[in-house]
Amino acid sequence: MFLGEVLGTVVSPVQIPILNGQKLLIVRTLTPDGRRTGKTRIAIDKAQAGVGDRVLCLDEGSGARGIFKDPEGAVKTVVLGVVDYVELERGRVYDHRTTKREGQA
Amino acid sequence: MFLGEVLGTVVSPVQIPILNGQKLLIVRTLTPDGRRTGKTRIAIDKAQAGVGDRVLCLDEGSGARGIFKDPEGAVKTVVLGVVDYVELERGRVYDHRTTKREGQA
Amino acid sequence: MFLGEVLGTVVSPVQIPILNGQKLLIVRTLTPDGRRTGKTRIAIDKAQAGVGDRVLCLDEGSGARGIFKDPEGAVKTVVLGVVDYVELERGRVYDHRTTKREGQA
Amino acid sequence: MFLGEVLGTVVSPVQIPILNGQKLLIVRTLTPDGRRTGKTRIAIDKAQAGVGDRVLCLDEGSGARGIFKDPEGAVKTVVLGVVDYVELERGRVYDHRTTKREGQA
Amino acid sequence: MFLGEVLGTVVSPVQIPILNGQKLLIVRTLTPDGRRTGKTRIAIDKAQAGVGDRVLCLDEGSGARGIFKDPEGAVKTVVLGVVDYVELERGRVYDHRTTKREGQA
Repeated sequence: MFLGEVLGTVVSPVQIPILNGQKLLIVRTLTPDGRRTGKTRIAIDKAQAGVGDRVLCLDEGSGARGIFKDPEGAVKTVVLGVVDYVELERGRVYDHRTTKREGQA
Repeated sequence: MFLGEVLGTVVSPVQIPILNGQKLLIVRTLTPDGRRTGKTRIAIDKAQAGVGDRVLCLDEGSGARGIFKDPEGAVKTVVLGVVDYVELERGRVYDHRTTKREGQA
Repeated sequence: MFLGEVLGTVVSPVQIPILNGQKLLIVRTLTPDGRRTGKTRIAIDKAQAGVGDRVLCLDEGSGARGIFKDPEGAVKTVVLGVVDYVELERGRVYDHRTTKREGQA
Repeated sequence: MFLGEVLGTVVSPVQIPILNGQKLLIVRTLTPDGRRTGKTRIAIDKAQAGVGDRVLCLDEGSGARGIFKDPEGAVKTVVLGVVDYVELERGRVYDHRTTKREGQA
Repeated sequence: MFLGEVLGTVVSPVQIPILNGQKLLIVRTLTPDGRRTGKTRIAIDKAQAGVGDRVLCLDEGSGARGIFKDPEGAVKTVVLGVVDYVELERGRVYDHRTTKREGQA
C-alpha cells in the first residue's frame, strides 16, 4: 500500500463492467511526511475521496478485485480510505482534522 | 491504471492465441497534465485507439485476461479507453473534443 | 522480500475486513548495510514491530493473503519479522541485540 | 509487454521442470525508436530468437505460465516473437527485413 | 528472471511455514557483464548458493510458490541456480569455473 494525494479525475468511456459508474481518481504518491513525488496512478475510488484528500491506496490487482467481488475485474489500484493521521518517530506529521484542503502547498 | 499516449504500433508474428488479430500499440506514459515521460509499454488495443490518442491503460495481467476472457492469456497491458477529459484542481487540463491530433507538441 | 525500517504508522478508517484491527506501518526500504533509501511502503504488521525496528518484509499480494488466510484480502506488503542479524562478506553488519533503537542515526 | 534486443544467453543448471531444455536469453529493453535502455532481464525463448534480434517480450508470470501450460512454472519473462516492424507517427522506424544483425550500433 | 550476486544472509525469527529452515540470501542485481547495480532483494535459496556466487533468480510470487509446492507461501524471490556461464555477442563474459570467489572486484 502507499500514501497518496488526490489530484483530480479522469473520464473515459470504458466498456468494462467493473468500471461502470466508478470514479477514476488521479493519485500522486506522497512520502510519509507529505512531500509529493513524481509518480501518479489512476485509481478507483472506494472512499468517497475528493481532490486534495490524503489517501491510503492499494496497488495490487487481486486484492483490488476482492474488494469489488469480481475475480476478473480490470482493476489494479484502489483508494481504500482517507487518512486520519500519520505518525513518525518525531510525532504526528499529518492530521486530517487540522488540515485545510484549500491552503495546502 | 495509467494515462498514456499512443505513439505507434508493433507488428510481430507471435504464435499466441490471445494475440491473434490484435493490434499492438506502443503507449507512452503521461503525467496528469499531459507531459510525456520516458516510459513506454506495448499494449493490446481494446478501444480502437489511434496514434496521438490519449488513453486510459491497465497494466495488470489478471485483469487484462479477464477482459479477453482467457485465464491463461499472454497479456499484461491493455488500452481500456480513449480519454474524454482530465480534471485537476485548477480545472480541465485535457479535453478530447478540443484537442487536435495533428497539432500536438 | 526486502529489508526495511519502521518509520511510523498510518491510521485510516478503511472498511476492508482484512484490515480490521491491523496496525499499518510505514516502512522505509534499507540497503543490506542499513543505509536508508528513498522508498517507503505501507505494510500490515505481522511481527509486533515498532518504530525503529529493522524488519523483513514481503511485497507480494498472493503470499500476503496466504498469511492472513484470506484469498481476496486487500493486502500487498507485510512485515514478516524483526531482523535478528544481517551478515555480509565482511562480517555481521547488523545485530538486533547490540542495536539501540533510540541512538540510531 | 515491452520491446527488447537479445544480448546473449545464460546457462545455469537449474532443476526446475519448466526450464528444462529452454534457452535463457538476456534481453535489453529498448525505446520504441530502438535506443538501448539500462534495463535487462532474463527471458525464456519462445521465438527461436538470436543475439541481435529485436523482440517482443511479455513480463508477467501468469501469462508466461499459460504459454507453457504449466500453472506452477517458475517463469516470468518470455520472448514472444521477433519483431517485423515498428511504426511511429513519423513512419517506420524499424524493419526486420532491412536491418542487418552485424552492422547495428 | 534476473542475474544476481549473493552478498550475504539475513536471519529473522519469521513464523511462516514456507520459510522454516530456509536460508534467506541477500542478492544484488548484476548487469549482464557483471557490474553491480544498486538494487538488492532478499531471496530464498534453492541452489545451495554461497556468498560471492553469481546466480539466476526468479522474482515472481506464483512461480516461486510453485517451486515450493505451497500455493499460499509467503515468497516472491528465489535463487534458482548458480550460473555456469554468460555469453554476450563479444564472447563469454563470465565462466563459473574460471572465477575465483575471493579475488573478485
